[in-house]
Amino acid sequence: LLTENQRGRIEVVLVSPRNPLNIGAAARAMANFGFARLAVVAPYAPPWREARSAVGAPELLEAAAETATLAEAVSGCALVVGTGTLTYRKPEQPVVPLPDLAPFVLRELARGSRVAVVFGPENHGLSRQDLSYCHMLVEIPTDPHQPSMNLGQAVAVCLYELASRVCSAETSAAGPGGGGQPATSGSLDRLAGVVEETMQAASYSSRSRQTRHEEARHDLRLLLRRVALTERDIRRILGLFRRILWRLKRGD
Amino acid sequence: LLTENQRGRIEVVLVSPRNPLNIGAAARAMANFGFARLAVVAPYAPPWREARSAVGAPELLEAAAETATLAEAVSGCALVVGTGTLTYRKPEQPVVPLPDLAPFVLRELARGSRVAVVFGPENHGLSRQDLSYCHMLVEIPTDPHQPSMNLGQAVAVCLYELASRVCSAETSAAGPGGGGQPATSGSLDRLAGVVEETMQAASYSSRSRQTRHEEARHDLRLLLRRVALTERDIRRILGLFRRILWRLKRGD
Repeated sequence: LLTENQRGRIEVVLVSPRNPLNIGAAARAMANFGFARLAVVAPYAPPWREARSAVGAPELLEAAAETATLAEAVSGCALVVGTGTLTYRKPEQPVVPLPDLAPFVLRELARGSRVAVVFGPENHGLSRQDLSYCHMLVEIPTDPHQPSMNLGQAVAVCLYELASRVCSAETSAAGPGGGGQPATSGSLDRLAGVVEETMQAASYSSRSRQTRHEEARHDLRLLLRRVALTERDIRRILGLFRRILWRLKRGD
Repeated sequence: LLTENQRGRIEVVLVSPRNPLNIGAAARAMANFGFARLAVVAPYAPPWREARSAVGAPELLEAAAETATLAEAVSGCALVVGTGTLTYRKPEQPVVPLPDLAPFVLRELARGSRVAVVFGPENHGLSRQDLSYCHMLVEIPTDPHQPSMNLGQAVAVCLYELASRVCSAETSAAGPGGGGQPATSGSLDRLAGVVEETMQAASYSSRSRQTRHEEARHDLRLLLRRVALTERDIRRILGLFRRILWRLKRGD
């Protein structure tokens, strides 16, 4: 089973939940399986207030972090796992069935990194932009006739899997690793920002319209998450880009 | 993964559920994981009505069996698995952690038998009498500080485990088996009835008071479930006891 220290490095993130009962159920499942770190992104104020003040609400609801964006909520995490039904979308990153998730999570935990498991709003799940912050997606193997799970139940199933299955993965998850501390989501965002600034400074843009600009940002986010950079990689690349940027700006 | 035929032989049994939302959540989890057979024992009428008439309620709620006793609900099953928190009770039968349940279930399914997974009422779980109809208890590995799960979430976690984990158990579960069709819960109850009648006819009772009589029945139920009888065993033993009974009564 996971140690307390490992559980303390797994973050549950709820994006804009709408139903206070679901928020309460998610928190209860966390308490059931020994997880304590909850972050809520851009919550609707009334249900969030109601869930926190419910009788018998777990303490972790009171202690939950509240952020305006998913980027902030996961900025300290080296592995961000998105959840949801993939029936209606074509995912742009690797998809892992929930029963196979444990080794990936354990590898990051063994390196001392933080991991986030992200759940979308009840009605439509994680948006395409939310998903672009995820390194991988996990799919709960549900029936094609009724694929969409209730939020509180989905959280319970995912945390049960993590709490009880990671043990058997422990040995096989030592893995290659090696190359230093994996980059956190926040470091990747910082790098993306500098790359983008450099592209602008260099007037590099094959496509000029604003909508295309958003698309390019989206693709860059996904690319940076796919290549498994370490913090040292990030420092090096940042150094290079900052240098380029300085030269470009001096040249103006 | 489980075949449709195998899923069709797994029965979910809710004993006296009180909250219509929980009933709905249990049914939804069943639909999510491809299970269709629900039985409800001695339901409280208003929440049961409300759950069945809820907007978007899965079809399986409409088709659910309704019985007065747990004995009736599981009478066709060769393996009855009780669920619940065991923190406050000392179980009288084997306890299996949920992650280890699959091989036991699969062995029965491979023999063509039916299996029931039984969930108790929200407030206090399965009673001691309910538990005496169970061949084994399954324990969801929850945190000792918050062991008690919400009913809908407990159903989701158990069915996820069964739906997704049985595959890997498939090979190891061929097991010994051999000795013919395992006895169903109903056959065991029939045998218990005849044994009891025989004991009365023989005026066999080391303990005379009515309360003790209930205790003896309880112990007999547990014993019959512990010894893994087949239907053929039952027929033989029944034959013997009926013969004894006939002799005893003729002798009166």
